[in-house]
Amino acid sequence: MQGKMKAAVLVKPGKIEIQEWDIPIPSKDEALVRIKAVGLCGSDVHYYEHGKIGPYVVGKPMILGHEAAGEIVSLGSDVRHLTVGQRVTIEPGVTCGRCHHCKSGHYNLCPKVEFLATPPYDGAFCEYIAIRADFLYPVPDHMSYERAALIEPFSVGLHAVRRGRLKPGETVVIMGMGPIGILALAAAKAAGAKRIIGVDLEPFRLERALQMGATDVVHLRKEDAIEAINRITHEQKADLAIETAGNGKAAQAALRSVRRGGRVVLVGLPQESETPLSIPYIVDNEIDIYGVFRYCNTYPTGVALLADDDIDLGPVITDYMTLEQTAAAFEKAIKEKNSTLKIIICP
Amino acid sequence: MQGKMKAAVLVKPGKIEIQEWDIPIPSKDEALVRIKAVGLCGSDVHYYEHGKIGPYVVGKPMILGHEAAGEIVSLGSDVRHLTVGQRVTIEPGVTCGRCHHCKSGHYNLCPKVEFLATPPYDGAFCEYIAIRADFLYPVPDHMSYERAALIEPFSVGLHAVRRGRLKPGETVVIMGMGPIGILALAAAKAAGAKRIIGVDLEPFRLERALQMGATDVVHLRKEDAIEAINRITHEQKADLAIETAGNGKAAQAALRSVRRGGRVVLVGLPQESETPLSIPYIVDNEIDIYGVFRYCNTYPTGVALLADDDIDLGPVITDYMTLEQTAAAFEKAIKEKNSTLKIIICP
Amino acid sequence: MQGKMKAAVLVKPGKIEIQEWDIPIPSKDEALVRIKAVGLCGSDVHYYEHGKIGPYVVGKPMILGHEAAGEIVSLGSDVRHLTVGQRVTIEPGVTCGRCHHCKSGHYNLCPKVEFLATPPYDGAFCEYIAIRADFLYPVPDHMSYERAALIEPFSVGLHAVRRGRLKPGETVVIMGMGPIGILALAAAKAAGAKRIIGVDLEPFRLERALQMGATDVVHLRKEDAIEAINRITHEQKADLAIETAGNGKAAQAALRSVRRGGRVVLVGLPQESETPLSIPYIVDNEIDIYGVFRYCNTYPTGVALLADDDIDLGPVITDYMTLEQTAAAFEKAIKEKNSTLKIIICP
Amino acid sequence: MQGKMKAAVLVKPGKIEIQEWDIPIPSKDEALVRIKAVGLCGSDVHYYEHGKIGPYVVGKPMILGHEAAGEIVSLGSDVRHLTVGQRVTIEPGVTCGRCHHCKSGHYNLCPKVEFLATPPYDGAFCEYIAIRADFLYPVPDHMSYERAALIEPFSVGLHAVRRGRLKPGETVVIMGMGPIGILALAAAKAAGAKRIIGVDLEPFRLERALQMGATDVVHLRKEDAIEAINRITHEQKADLAIETAGNGKAAQAALRSVRRGGRVVLVGLPQESETPLSIPYIVDNEIDIYGVFRYCNTYPTGVALLADDDIDLGPVITDYMTLEQTAAAFEKAIKEKNSTLKIIICP
Repeated sequence: MQGKMKAAVLVKPGKIEIQEWDIPIPSKDEALVRIKAVGLCGSDVHYYEHGKIGPYVVGKPMILGHEAAGEIVSLGSDVRHLTVGQRVTIEPGVTCGRCHHCKSGHYNLCPKVEFLATPPYDGAFCEYIAIRADFLYPVPDHMSYERAALIEPFSVGLHAVRRGRLKPGETVVIMGMGPIGILALAAAKAAGAKRIIGVDLEPFRLERALQMGATDVVHLRKEDAIEAINRITHEQKADLAIETAGNGKAAQAALRSVRRGGRVVLVGLPQESETPLSIPYIVDNEIDIYGVFRYCNTYPTGVALLADDDIDLGPVITDYMTLEQTAAAFEKAIKEKNSTLKIIICP
Repeated sequence: MQGKMKAAVLVKPGKIEIQEWDIPIPSKDEALVRIKAVGLCGSDVHYYEHGKIGPYVVGKPMILGHEAAGEIVSLGSDVRHLTVGQRVTIEPGVTCGRCHHCKSGHYNLCPKVEFLATPPYDGAFCEYIAIRADFLYPVPDHMSYERAALIEPFSVGLHAVRRGRLKPGETVVIMGMGPIGILALAAAKAAGAKRIIGVDLEPFRLERALQMGATDVVHLRKEDAIEAINRITHEQKADLAIETAGNGKAAQAALRSVRRGGRVVLVGLPQESETPLSIPYIVDNEIDIYGVFRYCNTYPTGVALLADDDIDLGPVITDYMTLEQTAAAFEKAIKEKNSTLKIIICP
Repeated sequence: MQGKMKAAVLVKPGKIEIQEWDIPIPSKDEALVRIKAVGLCGSDVHYYEHGKIGPYVVGKPMILGHEAAGEIVSLGSDVRHLTVGQRVTIEPGVTCGRCHHCKSGHYNLCPKVEFLATPPYDGAFCEYIAIRADFLYPVPDHMSYERAALIEPFSVGLHAVRRGRLKPGETVVIMGMGPIGILALAAAKAAGAKRIIGVDLEPFRLERALQMGATDVVHLRKEDAIEAINRITHEQKADLAIETAGNGKAAQAALRSVRRGGRVVLVGLPQESETPLSIPYIVDNEIDIYGVFRYCNTYPTGVALLADDDIDLGPVITDYMTLEQTAAAFEKAIKEKNSTLKIIICP
Repeated sequence: MQGKMKAAVLVKPGKIEIQEWDIPIPSKDEALVRIKAVGLCGSDVHYYEHGKIGPYVVGKPMILGHEAAGEIVSLGSDVRHLTVGQRVTIEPGVTCGRCHHCKSGHYNLCPKVEFLATPPYDGAFCEYIAIRADFLYPVPDHMSYERAALIEPFSVGLHAVRRGRLKPGETVVIMGMGPIGILALAAAKAAGAKRIIGVDLEPFRLERALQMGATDVVHLRKEDAIEAINRITHEQKADLAIETAGNGKAAQAALRSVRRGGRVVLVGLPQESETPLSIPYIVDNEIDIYGVFRYCNTYPTGVALLADDDIDLGPVITDYMTLEQTAAAFEKAIKEKNSTLKIIICP
């Protein structure tokens, strides 16, 4: 399939234009996917505002967006396990499959990964993308494309819950009730957590957290996190804390919120290069701390867990917009932060 | 067995006297042990100098010493699995066996533990102690008492190596070549580590580390730790770093010394309540950090690993002194820090 | 509290009498519990019919029953963490807390365990029992006593699911839809299994399995287990199989029902001393097989998971009977096997 | 590099001829390796004698041999991390890198693996092979080629030891002291096992086992395995048993040789499709059984562990022969089984 497509292109920080680009041509192990839904992620917003994240610099006009799902429109000659017309969710990081990290099951650490919307690789705010077929996962006919797209951020939550070795019946604290925090909450609930405490500054987000199954929420403008967690848990504290706020104080609170022998998962990136953490607390209480970088081996699980309606993702999505509205979507994400969770672009 | 015994008693910070105390009478599930060798530990020195460690305050004249081995001289009426005359090493923390931590295999976290030489419990710088028989482990006839006593600090190393999930063939960095660091080195070697990099400020300690099997040492007065580790590992960094120096800068270096997907074990307690650590490094590299508090389930392994001469502990012991010389031993440990590793008291 | 109580006593195989026994007097670390609900277990029935299970022989008149819950009526002098009047579930195996198995977190393997209704220890088909207080777990006021009693067999399911390392989203096959199989199903569901396939000979049990949340059932009189599982899973087979039927053929089918890299948990005891199993299947597919003996560290989780009504245990309970009807309950369990799941005795 | 090479070709069962074949031409991600040493494996002998192993049938003239090491002579255009002239060991199974097994770190279970000397893929009893470069591992200059070749069977031992979660200080029983059993012994020793009990029928093999570091051996013609293990361990039994003999009775003995909570690893394939195993023993003692199929992620560890002379592999190698002697080597392996361990072919 050849021709032109529309794409929302970041031409410079703060400026997205709708342009006509060539439809990509899949190589023999790739598929061409017609994009049906793409979530707007905090990292997209960061590239939009700053033109870079750490060492990754947008050096040319680039398409953002990496939380995507769509329909297969053509297949490279070597692809056997998929068919044209299939509905698929897209795992956006194509890894080498040959380095030590890939071979030992931690492909999220592959140094050669090509990740959608991480410079220099284009993303999915456009009509078509070509991607290696082993990173496409069929979803059931009854699963909506926006739900399929959300498997990407849900994967971060799943990976956090796995890294944190969450066991059924446990008590979990989640710092930050943005989309990642709320989807980590959904993953924790699916894994059998019985008490899930959501912590945030914004009442809007805490309300959505309760809709998603948080058993308790802590409003940080009204109460100290540790005092609240001690009260809620009757001084037992949590078994596991997951930090998604990307804030040093939240990381400190996450550490103090867990019991002796408890675990802390760090997902969010604070702006500061260093955060003061209490080593005596870590040592005396034999705490485990686990960093989380993206995810691996989560998509089949994500499809299985979201295949039926046990987990309602409605509260996570606040807006649906068209590809033409992509620039407006970014502005909304920035200016109406306190009433926006996930915006879905439907090309 | 009734009567009097000699004991080295801390009567106030900085002052140890030899006193006559009653020989303790074992209860029905205890054994009375004639102490043959006791190691002097950094925590003993801290109590000697400051009269307290964190919340633990020496509130009365107290006997220090918790790295001990000896001979059984009598048994409580319920003790079946030991015999009078047996040579034993002493695990110094008697736990409740009934709390959640004890039942789930993490008895080092038992809140009711009665630990030798941790106030208000007396220790082993004396002729006899009575202790619950299930914390005594017979050692072979050919194992010296000082070797048996060293199973206590070796246990900290073993526990660190286990918590750090060290696998055969891996590269390990150990920060701090004091007795704990050097015994962690011995534990790492026993577990199959192939490259063991010891880091310290003192040439004397680094020399002993080499005698104990370090494959490389880093002299911090001459070279930056991370630069040296990068050089030694050809930029591959370590799989595991164990921090035993009790120093914030060492903890920071431990973190930076491990590869993507690497692990860090924190054993040492820095003086500062908080240490600035790089959360972006932890997150982007998916590092695991594990706190270590004492040890659990290490004694049978410690006895097995030290039962033959594969591991030479000679380089760890710098001095042998009598019970009467206990005060002098503490002064030596403080004043000749740079030429002293482990001092053994032989009552 | 002194006096007499009623007890259903197995006086010889096949004969249970209601007798008056002394109310037991709790020792200082025990509590006296007024029994409110006790489940009838297959092992009770086996003792009733045969007077023994393997090496355990009923050598004197004995009270059966070990799935129990009740109300605390008095406390030994050392018990601090409980209060008179509390509703509690009873973990029936009192372990030594001092052997290697206990200390390493596997107290179910303690060779000194004193287990209710395992000779020579009496059980709970009576009005009162005294038991060590650390094996009592308070339950919420709104949890019924029969629900609290079922935490015992639910614990077997939880332990099976833990041993089998079940992960959210996985497919599980459970062989045998008796009470243990159905409660393993409930545990698997709580742990996030998405597809749960129940296998049995009896339509009555399969119907109850569907009520408990099985997504698929296999009726063995109508279809071969492996063929059915291949059909249901589209030839993908299961990630985990749990064998609770106590039948060699079921164990063979459990093995063949899992995928490459899959796991099998063996809970049921076949009558045969040896079962032919395919080592080539185990080796070529790198299968894990885990034996399950009772459970450990499951009660806090069991209380947490059953504290609300997410898991309906109604379909498991087929009959409620009084203590006086205990003999009739055993006869019903034997004669009406195909329409009986769990019988609850309420003294 | 183009031209002809010599190859030892299995033209039909029992008949190996030296032929001239084309030197293979490496594709862009492959390297061409001049073979320097190849071990003769039991599976090679099985193909030689029977022309097939299970579903794998030799359907055309084929080169056997998969335990190989050599020198790189040319590189495909995409290969960056290797250089011509490097000494390398060859991991013989090239996997897809894209299936669920590959992505989750268990690439040994990849259904698309192309394994040297497993039909229809040719092996390494020849002068040159071309193989994907990510399956080549540089070895130190001082490591002999035969030592580098033995990393292949050593990998099976390493994988068995990992699957069996061997911990330092443990007691291990290994059934079968053929090359795989003896190299599993070496792996167990490297991982810190303190007592290693080798079991076999042949005194010649037991002698070699003692040379390799077995602490005890059991001669099955003289003593019952379980009786001997009980005697040697003072009735404590082993923590781990590894079955490499490929014999049902050995698997039964492996199971009975481990303690409560012990683990059994099955490596060998018995001729019988089913082996009677005691489920009551597995259940009552909560045994883990792990199948082992080849290995994964072992080569870097294998190179690290064999890089120095801590592990002497001398006792494993009984014969060195030339490529021209390949047919004679097979005949020796069959006829002089009781005095032959590993035969190395040096092209």
